Amino acid sequence: MELIKSLEWRYATKKMNGDKIPQNKLDRILEATRLAPSSYGLTPYQVIVVENQELKEQLVPACYGQTQLADSSAVLVFAVWDTIDENAVEDYINNIATQRNIPVDVLSDFKGMMVGTISNMNEEQKTIWAQKQTYIGLGFSLVASALEEIDSTPMEGFVPSKVDEVLGLKELGLKSSVILTLGYRDTEGDSLSTMKKVRRDNLFIRK
Amino acid sequence: MELIKSLEWRYATKKMNGDKIPQNKLDRILEATRLAPSSYGLTPYQVIVVENQELKEQLVPACYGQTQLADSSAVLVFAVWDTIDENAVEDYINNIATQRNIPVDVLSDFKGMMVGTISNMNEEQKTIWAQKQTYIGLGFSLVASALEEIDSTPMEGFVPSKVDEVLGLKELGLKSSVILTLGYRDTEGDSLSTMKKVRRDNLFIRK
Repeated sequence: MELIKSLEWRYATKKMNGDKIPQNKLDRILEATRLAPSSYGLTPYQVIVVENQELKEQLVPACYGQTQLADSSAVLVFAVWDTIDENAVEDYINNIATQRNIPVDVLSDFKGMMVGTISNMNEEQKTIWAQKQTYIGLGFSLVASALEEIDSTPMEGFVPSKVDEVLGLKELGLKSSVILTLGYRDTEGDSLSTMKKVRRDNLFIRK
Repeated sequence: MELIKSLEWRYATKKMNGDKIPQNKLDRILEATRLAPSSYGLTPYQVIVVENQELKEQLVPACYGQTQLADSSAVLVFAVWDTIDENAVEDYINNIATQRNIPVDVLSDFKGMMVGTISNMNEEQKTIWAQKQTYIGLGFSLVASALEEIDSTPMEGFVPSKVDEVLGLKELGLKSSVILTLGYRDTEGDSLSTMKKVRRDNLFIRK
């Protein structure tokens, strides 16, 4: 299966060579990301696609000096909504009704369930819930990148407030959650590129 | 690209028809899941692969009566470790050293970073951090299933303590985080199977 080979090929690239990704490959990676599921399908986050060189360089100090950001082709910053409330649910329900060409009333039970879930969470719990959804999106981006033979680096090592500041996320009502850097490995500069991938053999428990 | 078509084909299947997945397809889905990255590569979770029919049926009441569990071929329960401490890091470092055939000392900086990260988190934060990693694994399982033309249902709608009880997870030092049900859609029984997929057109912000 092509997928397994691609996933064995990929690794968290620490040095990139500055080459640009072809537009059609980036487009397909983003479309795969857009198709990722989320709880109720709400997708309570945005993905900031950073290709501007100056901004990529400004992200380096916000991410503990990790230089692959500057040498990447694009940086995807998954950022959750500051506010997850009944209005957000309302917009989403209207979107479903429009896209499926059905009356909003048909969705009232579904809407009630979502509002119930959301109103049972405090602000911190909502943020964590939304952050978890971004990790599904991250997973989809990672697999799509590998299948496109594009290198990538999933990153939790950053100061969220600094990343938010560089990208003006607060003003957009967003908070950075997780980052994926896309580009091409610098094979000579990255000693990790030739190292054996280490995964646990005891991940599964059969019942 | 085959991937985009597969991701458009998949949906959160609410009714399954009870058919079994071929073993080689399940094996590849699990191998893709095993290859998912995680923070530092620690993978602080297990995946319980439930194929026993009795257990699948016992999971239904623990998951608000969702019958696709009983009619699935396999249920993957992603469950995080109860204890994430220096011993876990030690085991992981030893695993890397063995698999890469390098001295443990070479990894001392990396080990120090991990221990630092973990000791900066309280128990609740560690659990949330580990849960987030399971969502990357979930993403990989979802994409792999779609590529294998296997239906799946990502599920947050369950009572963790009840799922833990059915599967005896507490005794294994585990806590259920998220569930993926694998099988085949019951096209006639599931009205969602023919509905248009709804995704946000405004997910991306370009910078």
